[in-house]
Amino acid sequence: MMKTLTVELGERSYPIYIGPGLLARPELLTRHIGSHQAMVVTNETVAPLYLDRVLTSLKGHRCETLVLPDGEEYKDLATLTRIFDALLAARFDRGATLIALGGGVIGDITGFAAACYQRGVPFIQIPTTLLAQVDSSVGGKTGVNHPLGKNMIGAFHQPRCVIADTDALNTLDGRELRAGLAEIIKYGLICDGEFFLWLESNIDRLSAREPEALSYAVERSCRDKAAVVAVDEREGGARALLNFGHTFGHAIETGMGYGEWLHGEAVAAGMCAAADLSVREGLLAPAAADRAIALIARAGLPIRLPREIDTGRFLDLMAVDKKVQAGSLRLILLQSIGTAVVSGRFDPARLRESIEARRER
Amino acid sequence: MMKTLTVELGERSYPIYIGPGLLARPELLTRHIGSHQAMVVTNETVAPLYLDRVLTSLKGHRCETLVLPDGEEYKDLATLTRIFDALLAARFDRGATLIALGGGVIGDITGFAAACYQRGVPFIQIPTTLLAQVDSSVGGKTGVNHPLGKNMIGAFHQPRCVIADTDALNTLDGRELRAGLAEIIKYGLICDGEFFLWLESNIDRLSAREPEALSYAVERSCRDKAAVVAVDEREGGARALLNFGHTFGHAIETGMGYGEWLHGEAVAAGMCAAADLSVREGLLAPAAADRAIALIARAGLPIRLPREIDTGRFLDLMAVDKKVQAGSLRLILLQSIGTAVVSGRFDPARLRESIEARRER
Repeated sequence: MMKTLTVELGERSYPIYIGPGLLARPELLTRHIGSHQAMVVTNETVAPLYLDRVLTSLKGHRCETLVLPDGEEYKDLATLTRIFDALLAARFDRGATLIALGGGVIGDITGFAAACYQRGVPFIQIPTTLLAQVDSSVGGKTGVNHPLGKNMIGAFHQPRCVIADTDALNTLDGRELRAGLAEIIKYGLICDGEFFLWLESNIDRLSAREPEALSYAVERSCRDKAAVVAVDEREGGARALLNFGHTFGHAIETGMGYGEWLHGEAVAAGMCAAADLSVREGLLAPAAADRAIALIARAGLPIRLPREIDTGRFLDLMAVDKKVQAGSLRLILLQSIGTAVVSGRFDPARLRESIEARRER
Repeated sequence: MMKTLTVELGERSYPIYIGPGLLARPELLTRHIGSHQAMVVTNETVAPLYLDRVLTSLKGHRCETLVLPDGEEYKDLATLTRIFDALLAARFDRGATLIALGGGVIGDITGFAAACYQRGVPFIQIPTTLLAQVDSSVGGKTGVNHPLGKNMIGAFHQPRCVIADTDALNTLDGRELRAGLAEIIKYGLICDGEFFLWLESNIDRLSAREPEALSYAVERSCRDKAAVVAVDEREGGARALLNFGHTFGHAIETGMGYGEWLHGEAVAAGMCAAADLSVREGLLAPAAADRAIALIARAGLPIRLPREIDTGRFLDLMAVDKKVQAGSLRLILLQSIGTAVVSGRFDPARLRESIEARRER
């Protein structure tokens, strides 16, 4: 029951394999590894669960393993350096393949290490969290955080393949599962109104981890993302829409300290704020915003910005964003459920109002 | 008397401006800066000489300056982090332009910072050393060193333009000037036999800094390099030839400690060793190797490997090289003056002999 999608990027095109039991199929992995050298980068949570299975698949390769601590707070230049140290200590050459086994943090930092090691080596994504399977493993955005801003240092570097074994979701912490639902809901909101309707009917099945529902949601999310990435790999235009809720979300993550809120949680609250602003800007019907926020709440996700960050500081944090252009912030706003736009022309007073209105009381 | 060459890379094509007095021509710089934000990265040696002139050209821009310490030992991840810190402290956005004002170290590290900041911002090279003007500023190789290997972490990221003001060579330290001559001689050896003949006749004029001779050598070197880069931007093939002498050279730099030998000095001694090996391999006539070594000596450059690194360690250091493929080292060897080849089939015993024969007594 494996599904294969393709991210169409010319000579950088690659497959996304989605389905149960994929970690037990070595050929999916090995067909994308060119040389005998491979390094699996994973974390302390994932290693006891899945590392053995991946290493078994890699019998016959010269395989090294690097186990990093788990958490967004380790997605930094210091941890990145550890990957370079390990690669050089093992004398891995330009043909070596890096394999990211874990969630979004592992995927982002391993992908960035692959982008920079000897000016670029191949890498493979094996996402084990819902968020990584539906979002971060697809599209080639890699990077690390800086104390002053999330994902501020990185590269575009496409993987050779993505192997999304949906069985891995069975061992996922409930909070991590919910964080993944945030990005799934995002696709419904920004570009796939029909999927949003499906999510309204099926959110409880997803929360209950019904395999069929999860597989469908992963596949449809990847399909939506792959379509956007194919037309705008380096975020010159349409790809920015994928950042719906993210400027607010990044402000939460940076402001609260990396690792306090999960990325998906921050994005969930951020999407509620962005929906609120869309209404204030007269773009979105209030009832549509209510539906968006209601679905996010039903997914068990936060719908309010943290009270610890006051409005002035929140605006300050938002000002450090990769979508800032010529000094002015651009945000993704909704026109309807299923249609988003990039806007640099919103009223700053209304942004302030949205932040205040959506903050925890 | 400005010459303009173009590095032909499709939509990433860019001009190299070569000539005297170019730092006094603001339009060369500003026409390549898209937004109002610019950061000049330079070092303590170059700043007192040329920073004012560049800042004057940038009047009207929001311009920040970062002055780094001078030396290869600072081309590392820690110094790179300082550039990111400065960019984020200044809240520079994705439209900001980085300007590298200095030698190869400044160009490499600034270019790499530009490659990674917000996943890529534009940058401009203003090389002030001979080595940077004839080699490192052209072609988009950027990066930093790792304690275990030179240039092991980096990216391909092409500049928007290169401004090579040959007047800057007047203030250059004699040792730095000679280091640049090494890379100039390299072009003659690997791909431009006619230029080698010219160098045999004009090496003393270059050492005496005759402006016309220097301008000609810079222009011809850039032309040779641009031609190679145009056919092989990411070093899939022909571009590797530009690394003639560099695997030996990098071993010297890493083994002696970064900053002890200048890059050009290490490459000079490395080219002598590579010429020696080319003879032992039966590829090159002994008289041709003698001519190559004689010219390098006349340029005032080292022609012997340092006695501090014994043969075993030297081989060890060479094994960490970006040209290693499937575990085996590849070297650039000469077939004649003006013709080089990539070889993975040399006899390891002969490599050992060459290292011993070319070491200082």
